[in-house]
Amino acid sequence: MTNMQDVPSSNTHHLVVVGAGFAGLALVKALRFPGLRITIVDQRNHHLFQPLLYQVATTILPTSDVAWPIRNLFKTRADVTTILGEVVGIDEAARLVRLKEGAPLAYDTLVLATGARHSYFGHDEWEGAAPGLKSLEDATTIRRRVLLAFEKAEVSGSAEERAALLTFVVIGAGPTGVELAGIIAELAQHILPKEFRTIDTRTARVILVEAGPRVLPAFPESLSAYAQAALTRLGVSVQTGEAVTNITDEGVRIGENEIAARTVIWAAGVKASPAAAWLGAEADRAGRVRVGPDLSVPGHPEIFVIGDTASVLNEDGTPVPGIAPAAKQQGRFVAGLLRARLSGKPPPARFRYRHSGNLATIGRSAAVVDFGRIQLKGALAWWFWGIAHIFFLIGTRSRIAVALSWLWSYATGRNSARLITQRDIHRNER
Amino acid sequence: MTNMQDVPSSNTHHLVVVGAGFAGLALVKALRFPGLRITIVDQRNHHLFQPLLYQVATTILPTSDVAWPIRNLFKTRADVTTILGEVVGIDEAARLVRLKEGAPLAYDTLVLATGARHSYFGHDEWEGAAPGLKSLEDATTIRRRVLLAFEKAEVSGSAEERAALLTFVVIGAGPTGVELAGIIAELAQHILPKEFRTIDTRTARVILVEAGPRVLPAFPESLSAYAQAALTRLGVSVQTGEAVTNITDEGVRIGENEIAARTVIWAAGVKASPAAAWLGAEADRAGRVRVGPDLSVPGHPEIFVIGDTASVLNEDGTPVPGIAPAAKQQGRFVAGLLRARLSGKPPPARFRYRHSGNLATIGRSAAVVDFGRIQLKGALAWWFWGIAHIFFLIGTRSRIAVALSWLWSYATGRNSARLITQRDIHRNER
Repeated sequence: MTNMQDVPSSNTHHLVVVGAGFAGLALVKALRFPGLRITIVDQRNHHLFQPLLYQVATTILPTSDVAWPIRNLFKTRADVTTILGEVVGIDEAARLVRLKEGAPLAYDTLVLATGARHSYFGHDEWEGAAPGLKSLEDATTIRRRVLLAFEKAEVSGSAEERAALLTFVVIGAGPTGVELAGIIAELAQHILPKEFRTIDTRTARVILVEAGPRVLPAFPESLSAYAQAALTRLGVSVQTGEAVTNITDEGVRIGENEIAARTVIWAAGVKASPAAAWLGAEADRAGRVRVGPDLSVPGHPEIFVIGDTASVLNEDGTPVPGIAPAAKQQGRFVAGLLRARLSGKPPPARFRYRHSGNLATIGRSAAVVDFGRIQLKGALAWWFWGIAHIFFLIGTRSRIAVALSWLWSYATGRNSARLITQRDIHRNER
Repeated sequence: MTNMQDVPSSNTHHLVVVGAGFAGLALVKALRFPGLRITIVDQRNHHLFQPLLYQVATTILPTSDVAWPIRNLFKTRADVTTILGEVVGIDEAARLVRLKEGAPLAYDTLVLATGARHSYFGHDEWEGAAPGLKSLEDATTIRRRVLLAFEKAEVSGSAEERAALLTFVVIGAGPTGVELAGIIAELAQHILPKEFRTIDTRTARVILVEAGPRVLPAFPESLSAYAQAALTRLGVSVQTGEAVTNITDEGVRIGENEIAARTVIWAAGVKASPAAAWLGAEADRAGRVRVGPDLSVPGHPEIFVIGDTASVLNEDGTPVPGIAPAAKQQGRFVAGLLRARLSGKPPPARFRYRHSGNLATIGRSAAVVDFGRIQLKGALAWWFWGIAHIFFLIGTRSRIAVALSWLWSYATGRNSARLITQRDIHRNER
């Protein structure tokens, strides 16, 4: 093995960051120190801008507008090495990260920022019928299923089959569920009708199911009520207070009610990556590692867990939410802490989360924004949301490309990425 | 079955067009007639701009810039119905097109424009190790393999393995092979070097293999010589006059010479779609249906075969080339012929191909253009090629998006679509 990162030397410090999501990326961007070498390990070659992933799943944006090659982001940082690899375990005593392929990586400090996947609450068998939305492959799978459902309905000879093909069920009414349901309804109501000759796509049903009492549970009640009304106006049928009890390729059962539906999307729950198992550390119910106030693992000041993989508590005992701004703040906090340590200064003792707000869009012209004291809704909120997201994208090209895709979609009703491609991850289709 | 296209009525004429490539699309765009209904059948939901597909395979363009949903292109044409479906046979006596799923389609006139796939000259077992470039999936498979090779080389502990990973073999030096080899060499020489820490990507070998005596055999010899010199300058090793005798996942054998290479791309031969077998018609060696001078199938004036599926001869007995302009001309010719027939006027007796020229690019700053009397090469030819291709794209948005991607790639060396996504079609990788 000739990789220099495997030969710890006495006058350098080697930081290994696993995961290049919002948390890991923010950390590496904020940290540069003489003698510090950083290695980023990710099982993908790209950082993914998850807040816009639902727009890939619903044909508005192409995959390449929401993903950037990690190593390209650190091209000018000679202190940063990027490795495409899958972590399979951690040896805390020997300070080694074990990879699926190749020699293990030695670290002086380790940061785990490996994110989360969907959780089916003990019903993993539902995943094939109801994929979640976490990766580009998830997004193209959902896009494929939504578009194929309309295509198959157009040529189906059976009215019953057509109805099932034109029924779309989204499970979970957090921001992602609300955003998916809104755009699928707009596709059916406004974008596709003129293109089909046999079916009327406006007869499609989009059903948004939420076990809790209201949509967008993390938002104030008034914004939830606004969002529900806006969804209804778009043609989404919102069913709150009812839990899904079964999902198959034929449809879903909600309480005692069977709904025949060929396209079901899971936006209900997440569970953390297996970081807790790698560390043998204490985890919460969602599998997140319970970290100390400085985001390190109790008993291991050289190991930090940040982002959706960590269970972080505010001083008042409330949990820090699993959203992008929180992940970025944690990354920057650990960067500052390590800089202090390396400089021999006292490191900050506690991460303090500053909540900047919650945002969600409903279709292509309404949104809700909650800043605590200030709340926005409707078209103004949508513009705020759109401008904020373009600002948060990486690089001028992505900003221009996304703005162009959005303007085009609005002005012409032609979405950029209405492609049925690849094989289905779960189904045995062509 | 309730589809209206299955109920031929006495006062309408039903034209079924199978395949929405350049030929089929040009036909439908050019033909509109009172009482004429047109049904387009394609196994994809999108038309693909194949001349730029190599740029998807080499990370310059995202998939959605070179593909458009077929039904969206005919949204305002109430006389056109689009069906996503796979043809499995044709019953000429009953005038029915049989589909893999759903009821057969009755036609009055049938046009087959189903294109071509790669041909491995009797070695279909090579396909897994050496994919060709015909579909978006082919392009993302090649992109994935090229990018993964560099990623794996970066972490490989074996010098031998690294050398095999950094060897890229392109087989066939027509325009596609030349274009692929040129861009892969530029990636290795100019775009990737600063991003890797262990390997020097400039040591990568790109080998272009051509069994014939020179690259770009369809071009004049002086342009072939220029292209070969330009490829060599980019770092491509050109091997002409030698045939590939074996391909495995470990590498290729060229004559008696074994080359260890993990990435091999096939750009050597094409064979027509199975249209000849559906019709029981006479075919040439490449499987193309031998059509009459008016592009109809001998003995079947109601069936036409056009584009890469047809073997069409000029009046002097020379073959019409399998390129996009020829396909478009054939589509427009059949449109005019059918309009004449439907109007009761005498239809034209013979298709006449007008050769407008051959174009090929070498890397991102040189090209060769052959107009017969006028020949261009170098940067001027590249600009001509770029402007011509932007002009031929469908729609303002694609033109802006492609121009933006190109400008960005030139100005910054950051390509738009450097994503490793999806599973490999052939290999059993993650």
